[in-house]
Amino acid sequence: MNFILARRARALTSSAIREILKVTERPEVISFAGGLPSPQSFPVDEIARASVRVFGRQAATALQYGPTEGYAPLREWVAARHGVDAAQVMITTGSQQALDLLGKVLIDAGSPVLVETPTYLGALQAFALYEPVFCAVDCDADGPLPQALSAGLAAGARFIYVQPNFQNPTGRRMPLARRQELVARAAALGLPVVEDDPYGELAYDGEHLPSLRSLAPNGVVYLGSFSKVLAPGLRLGYLIAPPALFGKLVQAKQASDLHTPSVAQLLAWETVRDGLLDTHLDSVRALYAGQCAAMLGALERHMPAGVSWNRPQGGMFIWLTLPAGLDAGALLDAAVARNVAYVPGAAFYAGEGPVNTLRLAFVTVPQALIEEGVARLGALFAAALAGDTAASLPA
Amino acid sequence: MNFILARRARALTSSAIREILKVTERPEVISFAGGLPSPQSFPVDEIARASVRVFGRQAATALQYGPTEGYAPLREWVAARHGVDAAQVMITTGSQQALDLLGKVLIDAGSPVLVETPTYLGALQAFALYEPVFCAVDCDADGPLPQALSAGLAAGARFIYVQPNFQNPTGRRMPLARRQELVARAAALGLPVVEDDPYGELAYDGEHLPSLRSLAPNGVVYLGSFSKVLAPGLRLGYLIAPPALFGKLVQAKQASDLHTPSVAQLLAWETVRDGLLDTHLDSVRALYAGQCAAMLGALERHMPAGVSWNRPQGGMFIWLTLPAGLDAGALLDAAVARNVAYVPGAAFYAGEGPVNTLRLAFVTVPQALIEEGVARLGALFAAALAGDTAASLPA
Repeated sequence: MNFILARRARALTSSAIREILKVTERPEVISFAGGLPSPQSFPVDEIARASVRVFGRQAATALQYGPTEGYAPLREWVAARHGVDAAQVMITTGSQQALDLLGKVLIDAGSPVLVETPTYLGALQAFALYEPVFCAVDCDADGPLPQALSAGLAAGARFIYVQPNFQNPTGRRMPLARRQELVARAAALGLPVVEDDPYGELAYDGEHLPSLRSLAPNGVVYLGSFSKVLAPGLRLGYLIAPPALFGKLVQAKQASDLHTPSVAQLLAWETVRDGLLDTHLDSVRALYAGQCAAMLGALERHMPAGVSWNRPQGGMFIWLTLPAGLDAGALLDAAVARNVAYVPGAAFYAGEGPVNTLRLAFVTVPQALIEEGVARLGALFAAALAGDTAASLPA
Repeated sequence: MNFILARRARALTSSAIREILKVTERPEVISFAGGLPSPQSFPVDEIARASVRVFGRQAATALQYGPTEGYAPLREWVAARHGVDAAQVMITTGSQQALDLLGKVLIDAGSPVLVETPTYLGALQAFALYEPVFCAVDCDADGPLPQALSAGLAAGARFIYVQPNFQNPTGRRMPLARRQELVARAAALGLPVVEDDPYGELAYDGEHLPSLRSLAPNGVVYLGSFSKVLAPGLRLGYLIAPPALFGKLVQAKQASDLHTPSVAQLLAWETVRDGLLDTHLDSVRALYAGQCAAMLGALERHMPAGVSWNRPQGGMFIWLTLPAGLDAGALLDAAVARNVAYVPGAAFYAGEGPVNTLRLAFVTVPQALIEEGVARLGALFAAALAGDTAASLPA
């Protein structure tokens, strides 16, 4: 049978990260590629106890169809945490689904969509199915440059997509002044903002900067996630949308999966309802701060001169820039042959990006292996810099 | 902020059923409108025991990111049950998501998509977001008429969507000969078939007719569901697709929600792995056969002459046809005022449908209330037939 593919599907390709993860499934590979939270960060005992309560007292609700908007007590919990009306909160099947729903509701083929440089690969994938024209906004270490948001760039654009906290892939956090400038500029241009915030709770210094949403409630759609603060296997995210958009997102969600699994929503609610998250997050932040410090220390010890990186204050990722002339994509095979892996930075650019960048996740691998993995990478990059052409070949 | 909606979103409307369900949330309403499975049909104790095993032994897997295709043991279980290779099986977030993914991968704006007359409302909603031109195929009590599948109708069509078993809304089952004729005709026309089978396990006579997929493995995408055989709150469905299409569906799923919640997949697997489903389904079938018989008996006792209905051999729905001149949509308000509800049939047609049809679900309401609810409907329709114009007004 000859299936006629839709135009959007003909352009579909598998994620670069997904392909890398397949290669790095071998247990001997020290993988800094995936963004898998450490299983140590999951509150297993608390979720197990919650499951006893859910199936003991609320089984009929947990196992039945539920409202498209989500389980009301969980929506109210999110609303209270963000100081919004629960009527603006929708529970989604991971925040990835929120990206898909925004694409469904806001993107026509050919619509301009503005993104950071670089930006989150999963958002590019979700939006790409609706065939926008991605426009990369110039950024510095603080995020998008407000002056780069020109009237020309914003004309007809459906939204700008940003991760203000510990961005994937760069780990950068947008300072308050930049946030204020960005939302003011977007408002002046009539440009909606999509604020994706999976890592906001992972600030090691405990500092919570105001969300873009709180600075411009009617112009921002906010996406949150339970994946990094509770557990990704629940696939629970949420969005907070202005009333003008909320109803359409609900209708799109209804057509997409009716609603997010009731069982996951009730498990999450029973786990967080008594305030677990705040104490639990302290331990997650401490865990990841230690992992981050271990990787920063290893980078200092093992990277050759000319390699630079940022020092994230939270989140899961460090962004490396190699000296010009090195190609992180071309060196990946050699790295994997040495049983260490990363994601080449080029995957995170809407258009052509520099080939000498890469993303390291520091949350999956134990500290002792971080040292060893970074040492292997340092040796590889040093050899490549020394013109050792064998370095770029599989060992 | 002025959000520019995508063209597909401007056309979005809320489901007629969803709106009716809101009205019928009042506990005094006897609702035959929703297709909610009876909570009595959920194997609560077995799922509760499964949850203890999942969180006791496999918490790290249940709470972590997983493969887009689904949890391997659950895929293998589905594959064994259907006699296919697990590489063709993908777990979806309800079978509603499978409909969305098929829309994403196969429908361009303006593509013809063939549907039954009438057809499942949720499929119309899912596909509509991809802006096809729906073409209604003439049907009789056995399903689509093969001779209605003309070369002209099939030209350029992306697929024909059918529910061969106890179709929602009509409850009809396609006999074997019709299945054979349909797949032969579709193959001759090069027309892919999407076979949606949420109710196939609910055959009261225990007779399993061959799936369309088994009759034409390379031309059919099969959709299955755990919602009616285990519990809808898990939001677990699956699809079985020919290799030519499978990879694209996986990529579309990755962009849509990364993967279906691991926790729901492991709960289902731990519940069904030791063969629970076969004994459990016996009790579900017996329960629903009793409910169906109760409604058929009540219809015989209470419906005025001129009202006709089918006698389903399985599933959850009975389809009523009122005498010409009565409008099921116009009478709904009067029904709800009398504390009884149904879904007017017009919602299930791709184009204009007859106004004198309606769908009754017999699986949600206990038998004693079925009698009472049908009596109220019978009185309403009798009054309307007698020309009592007050009948069509809220009481």
